[in-house]
Amino acid sequence: MTDPVLVPGLAGIPAAKSSISFIDGTAGILAYRGHRIEVLAEHSNYEETCFLILEGRLPTAAELETFRGDLAARRGIEPAVVQTLSSLPKTGHPMNGLQVGLATLAMTQPKVDVKDPASVREAVLRLIAATPTLIATLERLRRGDDYLPPTEGSNTAEAFLYMLNGEAPSAIAERTLDCCFVLHAEHTMNASTFAARVVGSTESGPYTVASSAVGALYGPLHGGANERVLQALESIGGCEQVAEWYAAKRESGGKVMGFGHRVYKTKDPRAHTLQRLAGELFDAHGSTPIYDTALELEKAVVADLGGRGIHPNVDFFSGIVYQKLGIPTDAFTPIFALARMVGWLAHYEEQHQDNRLFRPAQIYSGVHDATWVPIDERG
Amino acid sequence: MTDPVLVPGLAGIPAAKSSISFIDGTAGILAYRGHRIEVLAEHSNYEETCFLILEGRLPTAAELETFRGDLAARRGIEPAVVQTLSSLPKTGHPMNGLQVGLATLAMTQPKVDVKDPASVREAVLRLIAATPTLIATLERLRRGDDYLPPTEGSNTAEAFLYMLNGEAPSAIAERTLDCCFVLHAEHTMNASTFAARVVGSTESGPYTVASSAVGALYGPLHGGANERVLQALESIGGCEQVAEWYAAKRESGGKVMGFGHRVYKTKDPRAHTLQRLAGELFDAHGSTPIYDTALELEKAVVADLGGRGIHPNVDFFSGIVYQKLGIPTDAFTPIFALARMVGWLAHYEEQHQDNRLFRPAQIYSGVHDATWVPIDERG
Repeated sequence: MTDPVLVPGLAGIPAAKSSISFIDGTAGILAYRGHRIEVLAEHSNYEETCFLILEGRLPTAAELETFRGDLAARRGIEPAVVQTLSSLPKTGHPMNGLQVGLATLAMTQPKVDVKDPASVREAVLRLIAATPTLIATLERLRRGDDYLPPTEGSNTAEAFLYMLNGEAPSAIAERTLDCCFVLHAEHTMNASTFAARVVGSTESGPYTVASSAVGALYGPLHGGANERVLQALESIGGCEQVAEWYAAKRESGGKVMGFGHRVYKTKDPRAHTLQRLAGELFDAHGSTPIYDTALELEKAVVADLGGRGIHPNVDFFSGIVYQKLGIPTDAFTPIFALARMVGWLAHYEEQHQDNRLFRPAQIYSGVHDATWVPIDERG
Repeated sequence: MTDPVLVPGLAGIPAAKSSISFIDGTAGILAYRGHRIEVLAEHSNYEETCFLILEGRLPTAAELETFRGDLAARRGIEPAVVQTLSSLPKTGHPMNGLQVGLATLAMTQPKVDVKDPASVREAVLRLIAATPTLIATLERLRRGDDYLPPTEGSNTAEAFLYMLNGEAPSAIAERTLDCCFVLHAEHTMNASTFAARVVGSTESGPYTVASSAVGALYGPLHGGANERVLQALESIGGCEQVAEWYAAKRESGGKVMGFGHRVYKTKDPRAHTLQRLAGELFDAHGSTPIYDTALELEKAVVADLGGRGIHPNVDFFSGIVYQKLGIPTDAFTPIFALARMVGWLAHYEEQHQDNRLFRPAQIYSGVHDATWVPIDERG
């Protein structure tokens, strides 16, 4: 028997059997439960997509109405949670704030019985519904505003923008954000989803699993990318500087944030849709120097590297869109978490259909039988 | 090329190359950096063991003094953190409280540069030092006491028991808890350590990684076991009921908590040491019905199943010991987290010596090319 070989990052090694989503990176396909992302982006909405991801099929009109009501009824947060969020230091990243919010929410809820699918589903709905409220409230409290309870009957994107900005969003703003949520809701076995499965495999509850997945998404190699894309675009200094900036970047061997993707060898299918939406949003509300810079940069990079499969990914456009919607830069990753919550929790539920505790092996590279030397004789 | 096969729990599949600890489950060996756990339990202490785990070698007397000072200087928590912990609902599990504490601590600290080992190490020391304070403070606040700052110059076990109980611990109590910390400091690629590596691989910071690992440890299949052992022992109803209770358990096919271990096929080497320590502690401070029940139960189980490799594991004795030290039952898993913090963070540091983002594959078992049906036509 040969010794097992270490595959860095476990690339290509299956961690689960899953029917939730599918990617073909070469063909540029992403599908949730068999439905192509482009179709969902055009015809579906975030609530319907959540139902699809959780249930494995599209809802009837009556089921969707019930599901919307289930979320709307679970959107508000308890005074105890607001009080804890109010006491947080105003410094620090809202992803840490979101971890605080999720763990505090857990402390106010009935204990979840992980063996009971109905008990788990109740927590899953609560997490999908209340996470937007936690994020909007963190931002409100940080800038000195009070908690604004969600309006009744609103959908997720509408409720989030209303709580964030204190006024009802325009139809195009709501539709754009809703579509961003659809595009980010699920993406197979990425690091945060995998973390959710690993943590969930200990039979830890959904709130704890959500908080751990948020921790993984916070990493700059994962969810933090769109924040860095925007910082890079801002550093270019305008549309006319793109050619020079890009030439210097190539010269130094630096990587351009927002291009290429570990799983897509062609243009990220989410980027297509988001680019079109961004176009509509900026047409309606006016362009910005950042948007013009982004379009110019895409041209330059694709002309240079498109032949090698380097195209914009979803992070390239999402930050620009979020900024246009009035969302602060450090709330971009929390919004990614908000949208992905349903994907994480669908994987958590699926993991528990046939759970086995994750306990991989290691290849031990250290010493054996070290000699104990009394402390006074060491030197 | 054959399709990759799913190995549930990734059992036997290496997730990392590591020189931190080594287990031989058949021989009953656990070693940190080549030093057997029995030797460390007898000759070392928690601070020295932390240095060993982080640095890969034993410290000189001067290095150990510096390291103790480094931890002592980082033990206190900021008023902002105390305030957030004070605002938490008194209900809810302290593992959720610990997640809140770690995320809040992160918000008060300078931003960690994950690429800079010195910046990471600073956060690692802060986490090892301040986690006991977070746990003791959560318990104090819950019962209505105020934050009690740690005494200067104390070691971890002494400081923790002082903060928890408001008085200096006895020498044997301190020594016993210190030894429990040594026994729990590290244990190769278990679920929480693996979660720490997965989350860390996104370049998420040490505070976030610690919080995610806490989430994994919270699961009843992982860190929650000693709490459940104690509940089971209490449910037996006394030493004389053991034979009858055990016969009924066997009859019903139920599992006896605290016996057997996924990696040890003989007695868990940590259980040997802990049983001896428990003996000393109960000799000094008087036996309890629970302790007598435990000894009786061990006899019954080992007589029946010892030949098949079923022996008490570390969780069987740790809960009994913690209870005798005046620690509330729901703080057992937080104490496990306290002790394991160094192991998690050593793996985090090691992961970053040659990092690759974890992104395993999945075996897709769902449908392809589902047909989009307009909502009014579904039924």
